[in-house]
Amino acid sequence: VVVDLLGLLAYGDLVAFQRMAADATLAPDLARRALLCEMAGVEIVHFRRVADRLTAVGADVVAAMTPFRSALDDYHEQTEPSSWLEALTKAYVGDSLADDFVREVADALRPADRHLLEDLRRDSPYARFAADEIRAALADDPPSADRLSMWARRVVGEAISQAQRVAAQRLSLVRTLVGGDQLVPAVLTRLTTAHTSRMSTVGLNN
Amino acid sequence: VVVDLLGLLAYGDLVAFQRMAADATLAPDLARRALLCEMAGVEIVHFRRVADRLTAVGADVVAAMTPFRSALDDYHEQTEPSSWLEALTKAYVGDSLADDFVREVADALRPADRHLLEDLRRDSPYARFAADEIRAALADDPPSADRLSMWARRVVGEAISQAQRVAAQRLSLVRTLVGGDQLVPAVLTRLTTAHTSRMSTVGLNN
Repeated sequence: VVVDLLGLLAYGDLVAFQRMAADATLAPDLARRALLCEMAGVEIVHFRRVADRLTAVGADVVAAMTPFRSALDDYHEQTEPSSWLEALTKAYVGDSLADDFVREVADALRPADRHLLEDLRRDSPYARFAADEIRAALADDPPSADRLSMWARRVVGEAISQAQRVAAQRLSLVRTLVGGDQLVPAVLTRLTTAHTSRMSTVGLNN
Repeated sequence: VVVDLLGLLAYGDLVAFQRMAADATLAPDLARRALLCEMAGVEIVHFRRVADRLTAVGADVVAAMTPFRSALDDYHEQTEPSSWLEALTKAYVGDSLADDFVREVADALRPADRHLLEDLRRDSPYARFAADEIRAALADDPPSADRLSMWARRVVGEAISQAQRVAAQRLSLVRTLVGGDQLVPAVLTRLTTAHTSRMSTVGLNN
């Protein structure tokens, strides 16, 4: 089961890396573009750490990632940002949700894996940067909040729909990690509450 | 003048990073895709080291990169690969040429800058990986050598044309680094000779 989770994280880091490198071309200036590229660089370092852990537990990295390819690829294909602010909002909303999910499941893991996950979480500067940029942009142009809120809801909707697809296919992963089917609603409630408060923090509506 | 050179290198590292991250989507399998993403990660670490050096000599990183944006952007726009093998060939031919150029000019710098440049050169695994992939692909499909050789010539032609554009605009850079106008032909001869031998090494025709 830990191989499933690490495989999911490894592929998530890889696509996050490529997505941020691509998003950087939407940056309004060279300073922000370079900053986003450097933040992407953090993701590929995460990938390497998760991949090394997979190798250490005797798993094949590519085989571990493969079950999660289509869900993550579809998510990103369905939520291709068309502007810098859309890219940041997607990162802020989606990556934070993914981080919360990782925190929920980390408790169920052995110390070595739990510490790795906690380490990687703390080391993600993109969400904070994105929040600051979104807040500043909405302060400059308050009417754009409606359009951007709609975009954020679309991103979250797509994330939930792909997460359900993964959960249905890898039921054992979900059961072990959250302690049985009964706990799933409680986890979802916690994730939703945190998401709702993140939206209002930067001035977006649910 | 060292600021010009470091600015050129910093922007070169940044676009190399984004290009390799984008090229990774052309990879034929997940293992190669991950490998290329990790090699891209090396470029953004290089960027940070060059940017830190710029800051250390009192230069603004963005301002130092700006004069080289259009030449490098145009080069990449004109040589957008449409397949994995084209991407590798471009990297092999273009990055090696850039590395040779850096080696030519490194001698003219003060020790701190020279050592940084020599360090960064040694730490570029992409060209070797690309050479192995190209050699293997041409062994599998010898007739494709003609098409790929044509592509390599186009990449080099575009690189030379953009390099001349930069040289014309930043004549002081060229003069100081290669010891005056008179030496430029000798440098070009050395670069060309190295390029020619690289082409035949992997089975491409000049």
